[in-house]
Amino acid sequence: MIQTILLKSRPEGKPSISDFEFVSEESSLTIYQGQILLETAYVSVDPYLRGRMNDAKSYIPPFELNKPIQSGVIAKVIESKNEKFKEGDFVSGMLPWKTKQVANGEGLLKVDPSKAPLSAYLGILGMTGLTAYTGLTQIGKPISGETLIVSGAAGAVGSVVGQIGKILGLTVIGIAGTDEKIDMLKSKFGFDAGINYNTSKDIRAEIAKAAPNGVDIYFDNVGGPISDAVLYNINRFARIVICGAISVYNSKEVPKSISVQPFLVKNSALMQGFIVSNYAEKFPEAMKHLSGWLAEGKLTYTETIVDGFKNIPKAFIDLFEGKNKGKMIVKI
Amino acid sequence: MIQTILLKSRPEGKPSISDFEFVSEESSLTIYQGQILLETAYVSVDPYLRGRMNDAKSYIPPFELNKPIQSGVIAKVIESKNEKFKEGDFVSGMLPWKTKQVANGEGLLKVDPSKAPLSAYLGILGMTGLTAYTGLTQIGKPISGETLIVSGAAGAVGSVVGQIGKILGLTVIGIAGTDEKIDMLKSKFGFDAGINYNTSKDIRAEIAKAAPNGVDIYFDNVGGPISDAVLYNINRFARIVICGAISVYNSKEVPKSISVQPFLVKNSALMQGFIVSNYAEKFPEAMKHLSGWLAEGKLTYTETIVDGFKNIPKAFIDLFEGKNKGKMIVKI
Repeated sequence: MIQTILLKSRPEGKPSISDFEFVSEESSLTIYQGQILLETAYVSVDPYLRGRMNDAKSYIPPFELNKPIQSGVIAKVIESKNEKFKEGDFVSGMLPWKTKQVANGEGLLKVDPSKAPLSAYLGILGMTGLTAYTGLTQIGKPISGETLIVSGAAGAVGSVVGQIGKILGLTVIGIAGTDEKIDMLKSKFGFDAGINYNTSKDIRAEIAKAAPNGVDIYFDNVGGPISDAVLYNINRFARIVICGAISVYNSKEVPKSISVQPFLVKNSALMQGFIVSNYAEKFPEAMKHLSGWLAEGKLTYTETIVDGFKNIPKAFIDLFEGKNKGKMIVKI
Repeated sequence: MIQTILLKSRPEGKPSISDFEFVSEESSLTIYQGQILLETAYVSVDPYLRGRMNDAKSYIPPFELNKPIQSGVIAKVIESKNEKFKEGDFVSGMLPWKTKQVANGEGLLKVDPSKAPLSAYLGILGMTGLTAYTGLTQIGKPISGETLIVSGAAGAVGSVVGQIGKILGLTVIGIAGTDEKIDMLKSKFGFDAGINYNTSKDIRAEIAKAAPNGVDIYFDNVGGPISDAVLYNINRFARIVICGAISVYNSKEVPKSISVQPFLVKNSALMQGFIVSNYAEKFPEAMKHLSGWLAEGKLTYTETIVDGFKNIPKAFIDLFEGKNKGKMIVKI
């Protein structure tokens, strides 16, 4: 029995369970020369997938209706007719949401479960860690002693960005949505300060207090009113790394914010969007640092692991309510 | 009789004549060793001065109330006790709005009226040209064949940006506010296309039509709804040069626009504010190109020259109604 999750309808606003369709097939899969048979072990759910559910031009084409959704997956090779892979290997790659599937090995990387837990290859040693490292270093260009503020700080990427910031000698402030998350940022991830945007009466003033020397780098995962509040606190030559805008992904109307242009011109500041694949040439350097810091205990991570293939859509939807701490992963 | 213009009150919204005060002194100025006596010849009025009239932290300190306003000035040396300058020399520099004054020569550059008209040193061979050149080359990073769009295109900086864009092999589209200006962009400055934002029913669609391959570089002098319309048309890896935001300088409330973050992340695009002095190390290269292109006839410029010291405030106010074509200068 093979199960697949299709995009049934394009979400309007917040995605709902009914936007997804489960299909079961009673079939045994046959592989031919060059192919491998994969059994899915872990599926990554990520905010950026929301964008691909719209029928809009973007850096990657939209998901097609009634076709499988895909995301980062860790799978086990259960049969191989490809010399690069053998039975029992684990691989990571962008794959459809299926319990089993045939692949030709293209775009798949072998991962080593003896060096780190398999789920880490979807997180800190995968797209999450690479996104945090490349965005912070290539756009943020941190200089020891500067002040970094991170929104969505308790999320998968945000918590890694903050820790790398500390390793690089920055003062690090995190913004998140519950006191429990704020505590975790400080006690587990070593952030210098945290701001709870749900209980704060004046985020702009709290940022000013937490960053008395102003903000040099803003790693932005959320957009919206939180980002507006940060803008009032940026320094001259500030760098704003736009990694995501989760606060507006579900907007039905084009969201409005304060005009950023006067802030950027007044401060000679930079704002740059990116996706991790822009910096593919930096991946070897990033992996060397990330795995080294992880081994030295300088870097830690949090996962929210949900059980069961049938819970993938719900785990995805929960991202938009901040139910995850760190990387959200579904274990099959 | 020496006349001076003071900032009498900080404008709320659009500046008005009553925000300025004229003071006359019956005094003869005496100079001491190292000093020079200057007679003002030309005064530059520029949109960025509006920002300095607010009592707000910015890259340069605000003007003080009841003190002289200052801007770019060309003056004639009428007496000298400084070995670097002799009587009859002309100098350019940031100087107070006074008909005559004593200076020590610091920060003043000699300019040569035999090589270009004196007013050009406030424009195409001064801050205007340097701003256009450095913003376009250092942030816009143009590649021959790309598409450049310029807002405030008939303004001092905008018209130079468009011409440099053509010299560098770009397709150049200008946005301006009258049909007369659009004609000038095309016939005098060689722009490929122009859009009149005052008569356009759908700027976003007109940009899409004028830039069928999308927008690679946006040189933004205005901000506001025009910039919103451009955002819908940017390409992947677009560079948005924020030179000014004249459309919102007079806003009494914090202006709102569409949220730029989703556009930047979707397109891996960059938006960067600057002031010309950030790129001081590029000035010799810029001057070499600008004066060379000017001599070869590849670069031309338009000035709006207003007569009389008493008309400086009005000339400044007229900038915000688009009454100037090209650089606005007051001849004393």
